Amino acid sequence: MKQSRGAKCIVFPTPVFVVGTYGGEGKPNMMTAAWGGICCSRPPSVAVSLRAATYSHSNIKAREAFTISIPSEAYVVEADYAGIASGRDVDKFAVTGLTPVRSELVDAPYVAEFPMVLECKLAHIVEVGLHTMFVGEILDVKGEDTVFDENGHLDIAKVQPLLWAPDGRGYYGVGEFRGEAFQIGRELIVKGA
Amino acid sequence: MKQSRGAKCIVFPTPVFVVGTYGGEGKPNMMTAAWGGICCSRPPSVAVSLRAATYSHSNIKAREAFTISIPSEAYVVEADYAGIASGRDVDKFAVTGLTPVRSELVDAPYVAEFPMVLECKLAHIVEVGLHTMFVGEILDVKGEDTVFDENGHLDIAKVQPLLWAPDGRGYYGVGEFRGEAFQIGRELIVKGA
Repeated sequence: MKQSRGAKCIVFPTPVFVVGTYGGEGKPNMMTAAWGGICCSRPPSVAVSLRAATYSHSNIKAREAFTISIPSEAYVVEADYAGIASGRDVDKFAVTGLTPVRSELVDAPYVAEFPMVLECKLAHIVEVGLHTMFVGEILDVKGEDTVFDENGHLDIAKVQPLLWAPDGRGYYGVGEFRGEAFQIGRELIVKGA
Repeated sequence: MKQSRGAKCIVFPTPVFVVGTYGGEGKPNMMTAAWGGICCSRPPSVAVSLRAATYSHSNIKAREAFTISIPSEAYVVEADYAGIASGRDVDKFAVTGLTPVRSELVDAPYVAEFPMVLECKLAHIVEVGLHTMFVGEILDVKGEDTVFDENGHLDIAKVQPLLWAPDGRGYYGVGEFRGEAFQIGRELIVKGA
C-alpha cells in the first residue's frame, strides 16, 4: 500500500555535483548541488539547478561556463561544506585545502583532488522557479588515470562517487554491481516477442 | 594526472527512472531513462530527457503528464527491459507482469510493484538537441508503507533503488552511509570563520 509523502523533491539517488566557477576578479569557487543530471546525448549536455541567491548563479551567468567535479567518498566533508558555505563570504578552496585548476576549455576552475570532472559551456538557461536550470554542453570529461577500467572507460567503482538521498538527507557510497545495462533485460525481449 | 575521456555523457551516479505514460487509446507504457534529476525546489520539479523518436515522448506531449517510478534492485531485469523495448511494439506491462496503476492526480500510470513513485504534471519542454527535456511539477511522491523510516521520511536503504553508471554501463545498488548532509561539513565552517 502506498502512502503519500506530498509534493516534495525526492528521488533516489541524486548526484553530488561540485560546481566550479569563477567569481569577480577571478576568484575560484565551488558549490555542491544535487539538483541536476545529464539532459541530452547530442550535444552531450548536463543540467544543474541553482538558486538565484547563490554566488555560483551569478558567476555562471557572467562567465557562461562551469565545471562539475565529482568528489570521491574520501571528500564527503569537503563536499558537504561546499554546499553550506557561500563563496561570497569565504574562499572555499582555501578553507578546504583543495586546489582549483583552470580549465583549458572553459572559463571555470575544477577541483584537482576529485577523480572526475566535466567542463561545460553554458548552452541554455531555464527559469523553473526558485531554481534556475543551467544546461551546459559537455566539452570534455576528464578522469584521474587511476579511475579508468581496462577498456578505457571511467569506472564508477574506482571513482567511488557519493550519492545523496533527499528526505533522509544522507550521503551514501556506491554498492554492489547488479547487472549490465542493455543486456540483462534481453531475456524479456525473447519472452515478449 | 587527469586524462581526457572526450565530450561524453558521463556522470556518476545517474538515476534509473521508469517513466510512466499513457499512449493512444489509453495504453499504459513505461520507459527507463537515466537522463534526468530534480531541477527545482519550488515548485518541486523533476526533469527527464527523452528522444523524440520514443513512444513516451509523444505520450507526454499528448497527455501533459508523466510519472516516475523508482525500481528497487529486485527489478533490475524489468527496469533494463523497459529501456530496451518500445511501447510502440509491445505492451511492456504485460511482458514483465508489472501492474499499471492509474494516478489520481495526473493522466499517467505508475508501477504498482516499485517502492516509490512521483506524479508529475508537464510544466516545461526544452529542446536541447537529440533529447527533449520534459520538466514536470511533482504533485505527489508516494512510497510503500514499508520504505519509510521512523521519522516518516522515505528511506533510501529501504527503497533499495538502482543507480546507473554510463561509460561502463553497469547497474549498482546503494552502498554504505557516509554522513549527514548540511551537518558533517560544519567542522570546516568553524575552521573557515
